[in-house]
Amino acid sequence: MRLGVCYYPEHWPRALWADDARRMAELGLSRVRIGEFAWSRLEPEPGVLTFQWLDEAIESLARAGLGVILCTPTATPPKWLVDAHPEILAVDAEGRPRRFGSRRHYCFSSEVYRQASARITRAVAERYGRHPAVTAWQTDNEYGCHDTTLSYSDAAAKGFRIWLRTKYGTVEALNAAWGTVFWSQDYPSFEAVDPPHLTVTEANPSHRLDFQRFSSDQVAAFNRVQTDILRAFSPGRDIVHNFMGFYTDFDHFKVAEDLDAAAWDSYPLGFTEQFWLSPEDKRRFARQGHPDISAFHHDLYRAVGRGRLWIMEQQPGPVNWARFNPAPLPGMVRLWSLEAVAHGAELVSYFRWRQAPFAQEQMHAGLNRPDNTLDHGGQEAAETAKTLKALLEDPGPDRLNLARSEAALVFDFEADWMSRIQPQGASFRWLRLAFETYGALRRLGVDVDFVRPGDSLEGYKLVVVPSALHASEALVSALQATTAILVFGPRSGSKTENFSIPETLPPGALRALLPLQVLRVESLRPDLEAAVVVDGVSYPAGDWREDVEADFAPEAVFADGGGAWWRFGRAHYLAVWPQEALFDQIARKVCAQAGVAVLALEEGVRVRRRGTVTFAFNYAPETRTAPAPKEAVFLFGGRTLNAGGVCAWTSS
Amino acid sequence: MRLGVCYYPEHWPRALWADDARRMAELGLSRVRIGEFAWSRLEPEPGVLTFQWLDEAIESLARAGLGVILCTPTATPPKWLVDAHPEILAVDAEGRPRRFGSRRHYCFSSEVYRQASARITRAVAERYGRHPAVTAWQTDNEYGCHDTTLSYSDAAAKGFRIWLRTKYGTVEALNAAWGTVFWSQDYPSFEAVDPPHLTVTEANPSHRLDFQRFSSDQVAAFNRVQTDILRAFSPGRDIVHNFMGFYTDFDHFKVAEDLDAAAWDSYPLGFTEQFWLSPEDKRRFARQGHPDISAFHHDLYRAVGRGRLWIMEQQPGPVNWARFNPAPLPGMVRLWSLEAVAHGAELVSYFRWRQAPFAQEQMHAGLNRPDNTLDHGGQEAAETAKTLKALLEDPGPDRLNLARSEAALVFDFEADWMSRIQPQGASFRWLRLAFETYGALRRLGVDVDFVRPGDSLEGYKLVVVPSALHASEALVSALQATTAILVFGPRSGSKTENFSIPETLPPGALRALLPLQVLRVESLRPDLEAAVVVDGVSYPAGDWREDVEADFAPEAVFADGGGAWWRFGRAHYLAVWPQEALFDQIARKVCAQAGVAVLALEEGVRVRRRGTVTFAFNYAPETRTAPAPKEAVFLFGGRTLNAGGVCAWTSS
Amino acid sequence: MRLGVCYYPEHWPRALWADDARRMAELGLSRVRIGEFAWSRLEPEPGVLTFQWLDEAIESLARAGLGVILCTPTATPPKWLVDAHPEILAVDAEGRPRRFGSRRHYCFSSEVYRQASARITRAVAERYGRHPAVTAWQTDNEYGCHDTTLSYSDAAAKGFRIWLRTKYGTVEALNAAWGTVFWSQDYPSFEAVDPPHLTVTEANPSHRLDFQRFSSDQVAAFNRVQTDILRAFSPGRDIVHNFMGFYTDFDHFKVAEDLDAAAWDSYPLGFTEQFWLSPEDKRRFARQGHPDISAFHHDLYRAVGRGRLWIMEQQPGPVNWARFNPAPLPGMVRLWSLEAVAHGAELVSYFRWRQAPFAQEQMHAGLNRPDNTLDHGGQEAAETAKTLKALLEDPGPDRLNLARSEAALVFDFEADWMSRIQPQGASFRWLRLAFETYGALRRLGVDVDFVRPGDSLEGYKLVVVPSALHASEALVSALQATTAILVFGPRSGSKTENFSIPETLPPGALRALLPLQVLRVESLRPDLEAAVVVDGVSYPAGDWREDVEADFAPEAVFADGGGAWWRFGRAHYLAVWPQEALFDQIARKVCAQAGVAVLALEEGVRVRRRGTVTFAFNYAPETRTAPAPKEAVFLFGGRTLNAGGVCAWTSS
Repeated sequence: MRLGVCYYPEHWPRALWADDARRMAELGLSRVRIGEFAWSRLEPEPGVLTFQWLDEAIESLARAGLGVILCTPTATPPKWLVDAHPEILAVDAEGRPRRFGSRRHYCFSSEVYRQASARITRAVAERYGRHPAVTAWQTDNEYGCHDTTLSYSDAAAKGFRIWLRTKYGTVEALNAAWGTVFWSQDYPSFEAVDPPHLTVTEANPSHRLDFQRFSSDQVAAFNRVQTDILRAFSPGRDIVHNFMGFYTDFDHFKVAEDLDAAAWDSYPLGFTEQFWLSPEDKRRFARQGHPDISAFHHDLYRAVGRGRLWIMEQQPGPVNWARFNPAPLPGMVRLWSLEAVAHGAELVSYFRWRQAPFAQEQMHAGLNRPDNTLDHGGQEAAETAKTLKALLEDPGPDRLNLARSEAALVFDFEADWMSRIQPQGASFRWLRLAFETYGALRRLGVDVDFVRPGDSLEGYKLVVVPSALHASEALVSALQATTAILVFGPRSGSKTENFSIPETLPPGALRALLPLQVLRVESLRPDLEAAVVVDGVSYPAGDWREDVEADFAPEAVFADGGGAWWRFGRAHYLAVWPQEALFDQIARKVCAQAGVAVLALEEGVRVRRRGTVTFAFNYAPETRTAPAPKEAVFLFGGRTLNAGGVCAWTSS
Repeated sequence: MRLGVCYYPEHWPRALWADDARRMAELGLSRVRIGEFAWSRLEPEPGVLTFQWLDEAIESLARAGLGVILCTPTATPPKWLVDAHPEILAVDAEGRPRRFGSRRHYCFSSEVYRQASARITRAVAERYGRHPAVTAWQTDNEYGCHDTTLSYSDAAAKGFRIWLRTKYGTVEALNAAWGTVFWSQDYPSFEAVDPPHLTVTEANPSHRLDFQRFSSDQVAAFNRVQTDILRAFSPGRDIVHNFMGFYTDFDHFKVAEDLDAAAWDSYPLGFTEQFWLSPEDKRRFARQGHPDISAFHHDLYRAVGRGRLWIMEQQPGPVNWARFNPAPLPGMVRLWSLEAVAHGAELVSYFRWRQAPFAQEQMHAGLNRPDNTLDHGGQEAAETAKTLKALLEDPGPDRLNLARSEAALVFDFEADWMSRIQPQGASFRWLRLAFETYGALRRLGVDVDFVRPGDSLEGYKLVVVPSALHASEALVSALQATTAILVFGPRSGSKTENFSIPETLPPGALRALLPLQVLRVESLRPDLEAAVVVDGVSYPAGDWREDVEADFAPEAVFADGGGAWWRFGRAHYLAVWPQEALFDQIARKVCAQAGVAVLALEEGVRVRRRGTVTFAFNYAPETRTAPAPKEAVFLFGGRTLNAGGVCAWTSS
Repeated sequence: MRLGVCYYPEHWPRALWADDARRMAELGLSRVRIGEFAWSRLEPEPGVLTFQWLDEAIESLARAGLGVILCTPTATPPKWLVDAHPEILAVDAEGRPRRFGSRRHYCFSSEVYRQASARITRAVAERYGRHPAVTAWQTDNEYGCHDTTLSYSDAAAKGFRIWLRTKYGTVEALNAAWGTVFWSQDYPSFEAVDPPHLTVTEANPSHRLDFQRFSSDQVAAFNRVQTDILRAFSPGRDIVHNFMGFYTDFDHFKVAEDLDAAAWDSYPLGFTEQFWLSPEDKRRFARQGHPDISAFHHDLYRAVGRGRLWIMEQQPGPVNWARFNPAPLPGMVRLWSLEAVAHGAELVSYFRWRQAPFAQEQMHAGLNRPDNTLDHGGQEAAETAKTLKALLEDPGPDRLNLARSEAALVFDFEADWMSRIQPQGASFRWLRLAFETYGALRRLGVDVDFVRPGDSLEGYKLVVVPSALHASEALVSALQATTAILVFGPRSGSKTENFSIPETLPPGALRALLPLQVLRVESLRPDLEAAVVVDGVSYPAGDWREDVEADFAPEAVFADGGGAWWRFGRAHYLAVWPQEALFDQIARKVCAQAGVAVLALEEGVRVRRRGTVTFAFNYAPETRTAPAPKEAVFLFGGRTLNAGGVCAWTSS
């Protein structure tokens, strides 16, 4: 449980470096991420490596006792490289090269760029890989940011054809898998297949799904080139990548197979403003962030990191990139930091040490202002450091051990891709369904582990599957192997691996657990009245409903009598996308069945346990009460939670 | 009055074919459309024709007594053809080729593609043209779908120049017709004229209109290549094309000159969700479709087909392509089918026999589910077949003869193009005005015939012209030749053939009937109060008003005293776009003047007469009463109409 | 104080010309703008000049005693020139050439086009420069219209590199100024710099700002080519350009350095519909225009023209280019004309003499209808002429002399560019802030002069700086040199010249006047409650707030206690974007401090003084009362102002 900070020594006069390092340490930070985006200063001309400044910068930090997280600078190839090899640029869906002048201007499929990236990675790793102050590596930066996972370049087209040949062997197999008999889409050869873009109307969904899988695999392959080099030249150091929020264009589990831990970049206010939340939620949580956004990603990336979670960039104040950029309420930076720790973070690193006065991110706050005075974020970082220090002394690290939660949520990148390729209704998106499913459990105070589809589900009392659009054999086996209560969201099992409807109709392979059939689905306008009756009370339902046929009676019905919520033994199936109140009813009931304890939380309050400690967080803009038992012994904070307030207690 | 179905034998194992055919016949279907989109399976390699499977498929259907409607497969050129001749692709308004990977990836102007299309058409026609089971042909599929009428390819540019030379003879004549003196747009030669796109601001409207006319003519010419071949090789068979709803990019009357009947593809729910209806109407009719959408197109395509109307694709359940895709209320599939018959349809063919489990349309319902169980649509098709059978026995086909209606609506594709090229207000669109004009008559129970501008209007008591933006000599003559009450909507006569303002101001050539002048027009924000007073009652008016000068007094005035509704003898002129209640008042009065009988219909109810039979349809989601006289003898259904209910009676 | 009209003789038969001229003079017009867009008729083939028609047209006008404002026809290069030199076309931000077929299809950076433009300008100037009837010249037409200031052509790229080299000398200086160390954006040479477009995410703001400056300079350079020729060949004639409304893509002050007066094209209804006003304002002022739009531009262009203001195109009726195009209320054309005079216009010229019946603008009203009958606008022009004639007789031109106003507003094109490059919140736009600041003064009846940043502010009692994002040395000096009360809007002084944050934080160089620091800024969703308390009353604030630190107390605070309105001596600083009621409070107080007299104006009423005459204008759609003192002697109109009413009085 460490605090860190992102730092760009190349942006500042050398005269500042030693003082910066000293102040970082004084603030309670112990890790500093550097080197990101610095290629043009490490290699200003082809082959001319200028490491002296970085040598000095690392020494400055080392002298202050700080550990360095060094980055490969590959998110920003220098201009000379782009000019020498314009073919390394990605091509957007409109067919245009994505030009130099910002960042991430490369195509994951470019062999030329992979070689250039390997060369600079090796140069940096050779020089610093065994430096005692270098404790970890970050590869590149935010893979996929600015819609860069998918590229339609010639390199991507070539790579895609190889990938398809490897997968299908014969073009006949591809044609069969994609159903190209439809609309005369048959391909005479692999060479004839292009990336799916600029088609007259929507492209074949199997084609799109395979292109998404291929593009995802290219990210993993690109990353692996770097991790292989780093492992060779920098033994014993952790290698991480900083993933993003609400971003699913590639399979993060796959990329993380080559990493030691998963890091993510946490910007609760920006995410709240930019994503699908209701205007009311955006307004209410404008200065705190939606109460489930940080936790959702902590739990996701703890799973992606196979238990090891870092926050690489933590928002310290207003950002510059959302439609509106308010400041966090006082206390929120500390709250976010401690919530990360409660969810298992080993590191919370703030972005950035000092606000840059120039270039694209000059309006993005740092721990310090551009004039080097400590900003609010810096003050809260210092307070966080003190709280953490106290916590590590009492109750001590042993009583903060992470344990398996009682509830699991199966997080499925491919399901999200499928839902985006054929939403069937404008409002259907897997990721939103997963987020709202998660929120229903969190509002009841339930801790949740995320699980990769197919991984073991042993030991969980409750397993929620927001929607396994394609239920793989491995997932079905894992589900069958547990005794947990299972909850499946709509569209589960509705597709085969190749994006077809299962022969036996949905839920396809899940019929082993759910002996029912989905005969029809409907997406509904938001203004269409739909309601589900639970225990005589009518709850507004969402924008999706299914007609299910089964030999048993439903748990709850739509107003017109159709079954909306089905249960067969330990397996539940939701033939509806519930709105919040209905989700609460369902969550309450399945938790009771599963023996998962729930809490009565006030609006805006969330809790999370770590070892014997319970943390509580108040996201409401008003004062709230923590759900601590009478006998609770508070480690910090107290029962009354102001807006932005946090407390923690032990009760055993 | 037959039922049919669209079928893709190439999508299914041969083992299913015979059983499919048997079940079709059992269900009461007698026509099957096949062969559409099948080019890649008919000619998998250049010149290699593989007709065996189609031979078998046709035999399977023939053996079950089904008649085959065979399609030319030209909506989907195979990949090998596109790779050999990429110049056959259309180019979009942004200048990008529209690539392979879905459908309709060809340019109507490509000579190379016309030849390829002729070749495959001839091959299919030679083989099956005289087959006894082949009763009809469909050319291509949904010309213009996915915005494919207009192409900006080199082939289109070349064709456009030839078309212009033919029309104008000299470039001086073109310059004069287009008013190119404006903004120095003079063209030194026909070779210098390009398709009107990517201009700095809006292109010349006459230029755009001619390009639209040219593009429309190219569709007709493309179609004629096929109909010439089919007539030569398949004598005695009907040739049709399946047109679309709310689609006007080419002149359907012209294309249909080469056809025997007009078919259209009827998707009431998708159209209701996707077009300009109010949110309230979209919500209320989400599961039924707007009450006038099907009838509007039936009446349009009966006119396009010169009295012969087919429904080639009838929606059988939820579709996959609208923003939201709800399921029809129980009964609606039968209602839509019987309404088509009431409007004169010879054939109602459902799309499709069985829901495909793969590719782009896998979420589009069929009569059967992907697992081959009968879906709701299939059940309603069977019920429809029974109703039709009974109807043909009693009262019998003779009493169902189609007769001329009392009211006519002049349907004018060019007027719609003109309104789109220069709407002058964001909400002005001719097609919407025509639809709302039609609805005003239909809410009064009036049957309507659509008439091509310039065709005879003899025998009608009431003729409504939603707006003849350009009133051709032929139209004026036809209007003068009748004694009908005439109603002209706003902007009638406001343009010359070449898209200029008439010398004498609007209504130009219509002054022979309407001796008035439109001095000024205004388009108004929807929130601007405007109202028209009729008989002392004030009605909200729409987004358009005109200042008219005349030697006689108006029938009704705006709140500020300006004339809103003018009448000169038998000719009415609306200087306003009426909202629904005002339209009702106007329609009621002009029907009274014309001696057209009207009915008091409950909300959501529509009627249509065919011979001595009156059909009534309930589009409301609540129960309604049919407007049948006391002495009515019900042929099916009864006076009480449930939601989705239909009845029919004779009363003479 | 003259009236004029825009005329296109080449659009009409010669037979009409003499009569047109006669009627113009009769109507009271004395100036006629011609020749605009006429290149293809002046030079139908390369090198073939056909001046005969223009000779005749000018003679016709001259014979009627009319003065001619002749235009260079360079806004519309003919097709033969584009075909011979397609490289003269601009390239849009998407990388596509902007093609022939409308107007302004050229790139300001094209040397080829500059030469062609010089050639035709010289030909016209040589022939007509000394013609006694030619009294003035207009260069080109509406520079920048249709987003044509910025071009991404090869010519622009080349020009930009030269411009950068001139500005920075070395690429190291450029890299330092732009902060290219950020994201490895370092440029190895000037040749490596491209225009900033199609980047993966936002381009460097300094890069964008310099490209905007370069593009602005290219407009000035393009214009100077023409003014140099015109001055040489047409001595003693005024040279103007017709600028646009709410258009800031280039620095109009710089272009006007080569002009004798600034003209602008005034379309109050179109601007009201198209810009950022609230729906309520758009509705209320749909037929009058927002009460501050005309005045704002009159005051701006009077400053741009260094005291000499012309209205080159005055809206005479409905236009054709806004989303909705209503007609002006009766009287508004006269009101707009007289308001222009009140603000100092030397010329009000209507667009256009007669509505064209063809081409793109056929739905744009003129003084006459296409059938040559006088339209409402023509009648109001005649009434205006009568009013002006009377006014020039009594009180006479001497008593209408323009004087310096008491209040000044610093109008800053670069500030607007900066606010568009990094708005930091979706609703922040400098131009809107300037407009709303201006409106606060105008609602109090205060006359306002606009001042170019850095020009002298001597003699003003009140100087408002909506926001000097970069406060130049010259501006700071000018502000220091006055004793005026100063009001600075938010973000003042927040950037350096090169688009960085000042070392001492905002307000940077303005700290000499405002000894405070802005520690943080926030952009807020419009639904976030924010309020400022003034004298115990709470006023809703806008979408922006800043946290300010100072050694003195604020004038007014936010509801949470933070300072919102600061005052140090004579300098005020707004740490908030005020809404209307708060703006009114602030304006009232600072006017009182400055000794600027204010009036109690009824809603929708505006006044403006010129010499000893006060004009009042009623923009409300209801009757209002003019704020004339009891002793007022009315020159025209009276105390009661109908909708669209104007009056003027003297009271001294």
